[in-house]
Amino acid sequence: MTDLQPIGIIHTPFTEPAGMPIQPAGAAGIRGRVEVYDAYRPGLKDLDGFSHIVLIYVFHRSEGYMLEVVPFMDTEPRGLFATRAPRRPNPIGLSVVQLDRIADGMLHVRNVDMLDGTPLLDIKPYVPDFDGCAPVRTGWLEQARKVVRKKRSDNRFQ
Amino acid sequence: MTDLQPIGIIHTPFTEPAGMPIQPAGAAGIRGRVEVYDAYRPGLKDLDGFSHIVLIYVFHRSEGYMLEVVPFMDTEPRGLFATRAPRRPNPIGLSVVQLDRIADGMLHVRNVDMLDGTPLLDIKPYVPDFDGCAPVRTGWLEQARKVVRKKRSDNRFQ
Repeated sequence: MTDLQPIGIIHTPFTEPAGMPIQPAGAAGIRGRVEVYDAYRPGLKDLDGFSHIVLIYVFHRSEGYMLEVVPFMDTEPRGLFATRAPRRPNPIGLSVVQLDRIADGMLHVRNVDMLDGTPLLDIKPYVPDFDGCAPVRTGWLEQARKVVRKKRSDNRFQ
Repeated sequence: MTDLQPIGIIHTPFTEPAGMPIQPAGAAGIRGRVEVYDAYRPGLKDLDGFSHIVLIYVFHRSEGYMLEVVPFMDTEPRGLFATRAPRRPNPIGLSVVQLDRIADGMLHVRNVDMLDGTPLLDIKPYVPDFDGCAPVRTGWLEQARKVVRKKRSDNRFQ
C-alpha cells in the first residue's frame, strides 16, 4: 500500500549488526548524525526546542520475519510483537534519541542504536504527555530490562 | 522503497477527522479495538504482559503535506517535524495506548486517538527504558501542552 521514500539517512558508528547496542538505553551517550535531505529541511524549523525526538526509520538490513523469536534479553521464544526485534512484517524501527543541535540540515543526536546508513522516514518531537509514561507493566522484560544496558546484539536478526 | 502491508485494522469511535482528540493524552479512557489479521496472530504471544503498547499505523486519510503547519495547539506556523501533524512526507502515525486485554486476535485498548479504519503496520511493547522519559524540553509545546487534553481537531489536515 503506502510507498515510503526516505527523507534522510542516519549516520552512526555501527557498520554491522553484531555488537550493536540493542536499544537506546544501551546506547547511552553514543553519538550519531541524522542527515535530512535538502528538500525536507524547512520542516526542521522549531525542532531545536526539543531535547528528545522520535526517529522512525527502516530496518534496511532485515529480511523476512518469524512470528516467534528469542530476544537478546531472554532465553525463551516470545511473540514477535512483544519484542523490538528488527525482522518484522513491516520493518519499521522507532528510537527516542537526545537532540544536541541542528546545523545545516544535520541533526547531532545521542543515544543512537541503529545501523549506519539507516534510511530515515520521519522525525517527530518527543512529548511526555503524548509518548510517556505512567507506571507500566513490561511482561517478560521485567527481569530482562535490568540487563539491557549491557547487552549487545549478535547475528540472529540478520 | 519499502512496500508496507497492513497487519490489521484499528477500530475507534472516530469516523471523521473533525472533533477527534489530537493525541492519546486528550483521548484518556477512550476505548478502541485493534484487530490483528489471522496470519499475524501468533506474533501476539506474550504481549498481554505489557500494560502499554506502541501502535504504528498509516494516516490513511492524509494526503500531501506542507513543511510548515499551524498546529492545533498553537497560532504560529511550525516546522512540520516539530509537530505531530498527520500530513507528512511518510504518513506514519505513532501512538502509545493502554492494553486492557487480548481475545481472539483483538486487542482491547484505551486512549485511542486515531480514525476508525486506520491500517495497522506494527505493534511494539512500550518499555520505559527504551521509549521514555528523562526530563525533556518540549519547545513551542511547553505552553501548549497544558491545554492539549482539551483540544479537539478541526479539518485543517484533511
